[in-house]
Amino acid sequence: MARKKIVAGIDIGGTNTAFGLVDREGNILAEDRIKTFHYKEAEVYVAALYEKIMVTKQKLGQEVELLGFGIGAPMGNINKGTIEYPANLPWKGITPLAELFRRHTDLPIVVTNDANAAAVGEMVYGGARDMKNFVVITLGTGLGSGFVVNGKLMYGHGGFAGELGHTAIRPGPSNRACDCGKRGCLETYVSATGLKRTLLKVMADSIEPSDLRKYSFDQLDAEMIHDAAKNGDILAKRAFEHTGKMLGFKLADVVAHTDPEAIFLFGGLAKANELIFKPAKEHMEENLLYIYKGKVKLLPSELDTRNAAVLGASSLIWNLKES
Amino acid sequence: MARKKIVAGIDIGGTNTAFGLVDREGNILAEDRIKTFHYKEAEVYVAALYEKIMVTKQKLGQEVELLGFGIGAPMGNINKGTIEYPANLPWKGITPLAELFRRHTDLPIVVTNDANAAAVGEMVYGGARDMKNFVVITLGTGLGSGFVVNGKLMYGHGGFAGELGHTAIRPGPSNRACDCGKRGCLETYVSATGLKRTLLKVMADSIEPSDLRKYSFDQLDAEMIHDAAKNGDILAKRAFEHTGKMLGFKLADVVAHTDPEAIFLFGGLAKANELIFKPAKEHMEENLLYIYKGKVKLLPSELDTRNAAVLGASSLIWNLKES
Repeated sequence: MARKKIVAGIDIGGTNTAFGLVDREGNILAEDRIKTFHYKEAEVYVAALYEKIMVTKQKLGQEVELLGFGIGAPMGNINKGTIEYPANLPWKGITPLAELFRRHTDLPIVVTNDANAAAVGEMVYGGARDMKNFVVITLGTGLGSGFVVNGKLMYGHGGFAGELGHTAIRPGPSNRACDCGKRGCLETYVSATGLKRTLLKVMADSIEPSDLRKYSFDQLDAEMIHDAAKNGDILAKRAFEHTGKMLGFKLADVVAHTDPEAIFLFGGLAKANELIFKPAKEHMEENLLYIYKGKVKLLPSELDTRNAAVLGASSLIWNLKES
Repeated sequence: MARKKIVAGIDIGGTNTAFGLVDREGNILAEDRIKTFHYKEAEVYVAALYEKIMVTKQKLGQEVELLGFGIGAPMGNINKGTIEYPANLPWKGITPLAELFRRHTDLPIVVTNDANAAAVGEMVYGGARDMKNFVVITLGTGLGSGFVVNGKLMYGHGGFAGELGHTAIRPGPSNRACDCGKRGCLETYVSATGLKRTLLKVMADSIEPSDLRKYSFDQLDAEMIHDAAKNGDILAKRAFEHTGKMLGFKLADVVAHTDPEAIFLFGGLAKANELIFKPAKEHMEENLLYIYKGKVKLLPSELDTRNAAVLGASSLIWNLKES
């Protein structure tokens, strides 16, 4: 009997590096993790990670064949196999991640950022299985995005296509400051943090009472605002409305760039369902050029959220084999 | 001796339809035109155009082999070979242009809009010959754009990718009205018409004297403003500065979407050289996310402007043969 083909999907975060051994159908046959921040040296980190993956693979026995390593990492550059100037990882500057892996293996290694991995994951295992042109937007602490064009991930000349979180809502210096050093970036409005910032603005501008007025900025999180909105809190609902509106406004621009079949929303904020989808859809349609109106689907990601990052990373290898 | 391979490049405009018979090096061996607006019926128009092209080809003798018809047209849809709801053509609704051509020939027919044709032209004959990821922005009465991603034209799911002219400068209803029915579209700022509108705004806001104050909106054109700016007119210079600034602001968004190697400016306004390139470059850099800064070239198109539309259209067939 032929051995079952599997790939390693690796999700590198500032705290943990999670990985899974995944079959073509998206079943995670085994998984484990190591602590990213324990390793000050990227070389030592990669050696430890590779070792742990091999040990985990051995537990699956001889019936599996490993095809490659797909890696999602902050500021992962798919052209070069590097991680470049990440904000939250122990290794500063440029880390040649693929090269460090190649000291241990001859199998294919694909490195990209988590939003690109999510986009390929949606194509390999999720709701974009029959699509050639679509966008995935990841809503977490920040906002990431991955574009598939003509059936392939769009990575651009420098390997960094799809940084929608840092497109701008409007020109000028009077806008919200962003972690990246710019002002008015989309993710200062549309992300878990952006939602909090908007709630504070709504509180400042309105006089209605709200339980949320009891909490400081530091105490608040997106889930509390989500719960309040579900329970009818008018300020929380207004904050979601404005967040969706800003998202919809920029999605119309995304459509004017790439004319996708669908835009998928992925991650924490996307779970707020109609609270975010309704205003986003409305304001996208309102701002679309007439030739696009009513034609672009706005959908929730179909990747299992618990394992989405590992699945997305693993899909990079299937995609490599099949394209 | 093998016959010389040529393609027909066709540029459909509201007044004239120009065409040329073009070799692989971009030499136009013969050219002619018919009056678009003479033909109320698209079927009759295509028959007349095909006939005229064949007559022109016969004059080149037996030593040429025609490989196909590349057509640039307003609202040309590359997926379907149609022209859809054009503003300035005699045929309303959806015209099945490729299908009408196929009644006369079995050769390949590619239909797209003039900005996509310009992008392919830049790749086949112009400054993007070695590039896989770039953008061409056409600056005329309006603003068009064509994107090449992974070495292929990006046409999107519906065939209408790259409508940058209708991305928005800022959200909200208090922005400049656009012909498309929306407000705040980029082309209401960055185009020949946008430049005129901005000049009027500058005149309204300032007190400096200017020869241009003698002319009505209807009398003004982009060339007059260009000439005035070259001669030191402060208001004309300010209008260019603002136009370049708005362009640069949105180019930073284009980079965050697609991370191109270069952005080419094509058409009338691009001939204003530093008057438009300098503020556009400055404001693009100012608004770029740090990972892109200093990496994206802003260049003038290298297509011969007199024949650029015909060359761009003809390049669609070479591109089809070679990709």
